[in-house]
Amino acid sequence: MCQLLGMNCNTPTDICFSFEGFRTRGGLTDVHRDGWGIAFFEGPGCRVFLDVEPSAQSAVAELVHNYPIHSKNVIAHIRKATQGRIALENTHPFQRELWGRYWIFSHNGDLKEFAPQLDGSFTPVGDTDSERAFCLILQELRSRFPEGMPRRDPLFAALAELAGRIGRHGEFNFLLSSGDCLIAHCGSKLCYVVRQAPFAVAHLKDQDVSVDFNEVTNPEDRVAVIATLPLTDNEEWINLAPGTLTLFHDGVPVRGESTGG
Amino acid sequence: MCQLLGMNCNTPTDICFSFEGFRTRGGLTDVHRDGWGIAFFEGPGCRVFLDVEPSAQSAVAELVHNYPIHSKNVIAHIRKATQGRIALENTHPFQRELWGRYWIFSHNGDLKEFAPQLDGSFTPVGDTDSERAFCLILQELRSRFPEGMPRRDPLFAALAELAGRIGRHGEFNFLLSSGDCLIAHCGSKLCYVVRQAPFAVAHLKDQDVSVDFNEVTNPEDRVAVIATLPLTDNEEWINLAPGTLTLFHDGVPVRGESTGG
Repeated sequence: MCQLLGMNCNTPTDICFSFEGFRTRGGLTDVHRDGWGIAFFEGPGCRVFLDVEPSAQSAVAELVHNYPIHSKNVIAHIRKATQGRIALENTHPFQRELWGRYWIFSHNGDLKEFAPQLDGSFTPVGDTDSERAFCLILQELRSRFPEGMPRRDPLFAALAELAGRIGRHGEFNFLLSSGDCLIAHCGSKLCYVVRQAPFAVAHLKDQDVSVDFNEVTNPEDRVAVIATLPLTDNEEWINLAPGTLTLFHDGVPVRGESTGG
Repeated sequence: MCQLLGMNCNTPTDICFSFEGFRTRGGLTDVHRDGWGIAFFEGPGCRVFLDVEPSAQSAVAELVHNYPIHSKNVIAHIRKATQGRIALENTHPFQRELWGRYWIFSHNGDLKEFAPQLDGSFTPVGDTDSERAFCLILQELRSRFPEGMPRRDPLFAALAELAGRIGRHGEFNFLLSSGDCLIAHCGSKLCYVVRQAPFAVAHLKDQDVSVDFNEVTNPEDRVAVIATLPLTDNEEWINLAPGTLTLFHDGVPVRGESTGG
């Protein structure tokens, strides 16, 4: 199984602190050593860093940790391979373009007997259940909204239906973004924390590292961090209910829907 | 205008030496300071590093320079903006997926009055002529070969026709790869060198740096380096003829065709 990390903010923010705790789970404090990746949206543009090395030892992870990229939407993943060999093409997050926007997807879980009919508009490059699910989601979205990016309500409803349908094949926690909001599906395990004024000192669970957010924020900043397991041991992490899709915008959950998935 | 760098090899090779000379042209020895990027194929997987900082000063370029990623096909680009503002979404190389393979594209040139009919299968995220050209190429390839990746001959013939057609709009030098070969279109300016046994010492044009390839190669290694302008001052760089498409495989040009473009 894998672990997910997402960040959604109302102002471009760096993820260095949360990533510091998260990356140690890739080979140091936990067993997710089969590659890792992180995607940063910067406006409509997107940067994806991938590595098949464990994130705790990766030179690319060291760069990401030391290089504060400011982004409103970030998705990261550390992998413990279940389906698909350890290889770059099986490393999350995955990226595709739809409606002139980049879409980023990471999955934690395991889908059984999942061989959807794909029509060739989006085709997996690797051989994971995760990339197949991502391709199916985008294919269905394109087919339902051929005119281009729909408004948020119909998009969210379509994603809730798809998450429920795919989730019937097994564990299906995922993070998805096209740059302006972050959509999280909790199939079994996913939690989040919202950081906003009054800010406090947060302390990592996986390392003896603290940050005083008062020193690095403005009063109006708001950041939601979404993760498979809490990253800090002195903040209120809220568990998402299994079988719900949640939309985060400007650093706060603004919509939730049951998917049954 | 921009500068292109490509590498095609018969065995996975790092590009550290050539990249060292190339990156200094992004803000140090030359004026291409409006962002840069590099893509490495590793099997079917692909890693793209992008930055809007000048490559001579970029922390990401420093990582790429120091971190020997071994690849058989690499495409890099340093940008001097002509169309499209300085922004991540306008930074080359561009990436899309077609037929279950990643495709990477970089362009040097300037296409005038180029507003192709795009059907939505590939849509630009940014606003460069280059990304429009890439989307048109992939749309046309998908439409001509709906069953999937064709053999090399019909693929190359289709690309030659498309390069000629798009090249009528202006300067159109490009590098394109889906991981197993590298295709180069010379619209006005592009040259290459083949490094193979007996290997020699190469000296960079842009910096006083040399490498003795005898020390870092095996006798059977073969590497083609393709660039807008020669990167070394003591090797035989061969100019490609304007209006030709060339296919490099296993470190050597194996096919060429006039495009008129």
